[in-house]
Amino acid sequence: MTEVQRLRDQLRAFAEERDWDQFHSPKNLAMALAGEAGELLENFQWLTEEQSRHPAPEVLAAAGEEIADVLLYLIRLADKLGIDPVAAADRKMLANAAKYPVDKARGTAKKYTEL
Amino acid sequence: MTEVQRLRDQLRAFAEERDWDQFHSPKNLAMALAGEAGELLENFQWLTEEQSRHPAPEVLAAAGEEIADVLLYLIRLADKLGIDPVAAADRKMLANAAKYPVDKARGTAKKYTEL
Amino acid sequence: MTEVQRLRDQLRAFAEERDWDQFHSPKNLAMALAGEAGELLENFQWLTEEQSRHPAPEVLAAAGEEIADVLLYLIRLADKLGIDPVAAADRKMLANAAKYPVDKARGTAKKYTEL
Amino acid sequence: MTEVQRLRDQLRAFAEERDWDQFHSPKNLAMALAGEAGELLENFQWLTEEQSRHPAPEVLAAAGEEIADVLLYLIRLADKLGIDPVAAADRKMLANAAKYPVDKARGTAKKYTEL
Repeated sequence: MTEVQRLRDQLRAFAEERDWDQFHSPKNLAMALAGEAGELLENFQWLTEEQSRHPAPEVLAAAGEEIADVLLYLIRLADKLGIDPVAAADRKMLANAAKYPVDKARGTAKKYTEL
Repeated sequence: MTEVQRLRDQLRAFAEERDWDQFHSPKNLAMALAGEAGELLENFQWLTEEQSRHPAPEVLAAAGEEIADVLLYLIRLADKLGIDPVAAADRKMLANAAKYPVDKARGTAKKYTEL
Repeated sequence: MTEVQRLRDQLRAFAEERDWDQFHSPKNLAMALAGEAGELLENFQWLTEEQSRHPAPEVLAAAGEEIADVLLYLIRLADKLGIDPVAAADRKMLANAAKYPVDKARGTAKKYTEL
Repeated sequence: MTEVQRLRDQLRAFAEERDWDQFHSPKNLAMALAGEAGELLENFQWLTEEQSRHPAPEVLAAAGEEIADVLLYLIRLADKLGIDPVAAADRKMLANAAKYPVDKARGTAKKYTEL
């Protein structure tokens, strides 16, 4: 069992014990994930990019909490949809490698449709 | 090496080959993650909760792509911040268990501050 | 002067008095807006659609605060980009009327590309 | 009638003609707004702050479309909740002036709780 599967199972047990499956529709979980992504964003909104590369300890701690929240909702949402998130990420990595060949994408942030 | 560490290393190599570290500030990665979370949301916004529990194949496929994008940006962001996302999720699970004791949280979606 | 122009001018004066223009890049303002949109979302994530149509007074008050935050950042962002948000909304209304003709769009939440 | 009220009424008529009120729960509208805020974000995520202050014409055009979408969903959501968004923004401006007094907030992006 991988660590993502372990978290998935712990989240299942957590929700079952609390009778929370009724609230955990994919719609609601996608909202909760986006809400946490918004909170994550707020940690960096007034920092320069350079400052964000060297965050203060309290920013780092706060960002870590939001990263955890996003990951947990992501694993829970994927479980409810019957999606393996790591397999989906692997497929996406392959697709990205094809969309952004090294020789064309090197040093540019352009979208693949503009390369 | 766990699968999340494997993805982290693949993302590092992917960015390095393309000279993309210059774009991958935590600020920018948090934006990219939130953008993908917004796209994930769009798959469910006009569905009822019940419909979201039984998504059409094309919705499921689209949601899987966005889940992959969110996971990849999350792992990349955590790496740039020096955060282990699985360890952060484990800590959060413990904190959530303390905030939402089974006897108080059972069957309610109230926030822990209102239990 | 319209009310949106009045708010725009008040926001300009507010930022100028506090020397905040340095922080108000479109990039940062778009982040702040998305963060507030995420907070707005959190008010409704565990409610059913029906419950969201009849929110408790404290939910309504909290949503009102987030609606205000989103509107203010939106006006500020538009100002920094030199965009008239009401004129942009008027153009979008026309575009939407063309994309969603009444006879095709009636009673369906499908995207215009699927009508 | 102000321009925001005019847009509110146009949105009401637009939804009514298409029988879309059934889809326009506050929950769904908050999701749609957050989705558009995510798309707005994507226009700036790989730009530096400085680049975002001088966007290319196509970025400006795309941002204008998303600003319009956010404004329209915001007005529609406020209407469904019975909230006057401009009055809410006026109240928030007053609250912000109290939270961020000029002498303390000048030149700093700190949150009011840290001033």
